[in-house]
Amino acid sequence: MVKDAARTKARLLAAAIDEFAEYGMAGARVDRIAAAAKTNKQMIYSYFGNKDRLFDAAFSSYVGGSLNRVDFDASDLPAYAGRMFDHFERDPQTLRLSTWYWLERPDGPGLAAVAQLNRTRVQRLAEAQRAGLITDDLDPVALLVLIQSLTIAWASRTNPEFSGNRRLGRDRRRESVVTAVRRIVSRTADLQPA
Amino acid sequence: MVKDAARTKARLLAAAIDEFAEYGMAGARVDRIAAAAKTNKQMIYSYFGNKDRLFDAAFSSYVGGSLNRVDFDASDLPAYAGRMFDHFERDPQTLRLSTWYWLERPDGPGLAAVAQLNRTRVQRLAEAQRAGLITDDLDPVALLVLIQSLTIAWASRTNPEFSGNRRLGRDRRRESVVTAVRRIVSRTADLQPA
Repeated sequence: MVKDAARTKARLLAAAIDEFAEYGMAGARVDRIAAAAKTNKQMIYSYFGNKDRLFDAAFSSYVGGSLNRVDFDASDLPAYAGRMFDHFERDPQTLRLSTWYWLERPDGPGLAAVAQLNRTRVQRLAEAQRAGLITDDLDPVALLVLIQSLTIAWASRTNPEFSGNRRLGRDRRRESVVTAVRRIVSRTADLQPA
Repeated sequence: MVKDAARTKARLLAAAIDEFAEYGMAGARVDRIAAAAKTNKQMIYSYFGNKDRLFDAAFSSYVGGSLNRVDFDASDLPAYAGRMFDHFERDPQTLRLSTWYWLERPDGPGLAAVAQLNRTRVQRLAEAQRAGLITDDLDPVALLVLIQSLTIAWASRTNPEFSGNRRLGRDRRRESVVTAVRRIVSRTADLQPA
């Protein structure tokens, strides 16, 4: 029975991730989630309390897990940016979930796990700066925010009108992100032509 | 009477922009929009057809207008990025509207006016490259996408957890965007230390 409960809970989380990524918090329907998880609405209330808390659980398990899957390397940020690009191409749901969260809970507390991860990354960027590996023209917090925004540049289509333009292939999109990050993080001296 | 109709329509559009920026397409309520515009729901249907088409009208008038307010200068892209940063700080609704659009209509056609604007900008970037004003290491389409993503880096809080981190002041956030864009678009030779 305990095992059954764990399985039902896992199915509910998986179904919730799909539903929330597609429709957001307001648009998601608990009966669709229950049906996709082959259980009933009552189980959602008894395991998670309400739709909002189901979102929190789904968001935590998914975004937390997916962020940890990509290695952060402060001594090779262009390569890290390339891996993040791959991640968002492979798995558009992370960004959709985070974006719904931003729109629907602009003053939400965020995920403690992600906040902690970001703090660690900022520290590692500061260390890489002290070691002279990357530029110190930019504050480490700014570096992290700017790099993050470049890794999602092609995935977060806030300019959907680009579809009307000539499209670049996946390799050239990826290369553009790696190049941009290299130019931002490099010490000026390292950018000089050979 | 014609004047009254025009005024009612303008009030409805203004109320729709606020409502859609806050709640998105699915979450917006036409009765709230009608009440805020001091008219009734029937007017929305008779002027715009339905909620979806009201969104289109609001999105076009607002996003189209707001984009045109910021001068694009392919020969001074860091300054352009700074102006875009100011725009998004002053006016968070543009980005919220575009983001709802992306999430709620991932396959939507986009705005013809914005697509046209983007095509023109890509051409101007290509000209600036031919004139040797900016790097030609990056495709002009990629340049536009990457610059755009940097100008919204601080506004599109897809990393809400940053609020848990030390925050940078407005001037330093702005300066980080201008610096990043300068580093991305400069010809390598121009990045050499003095």
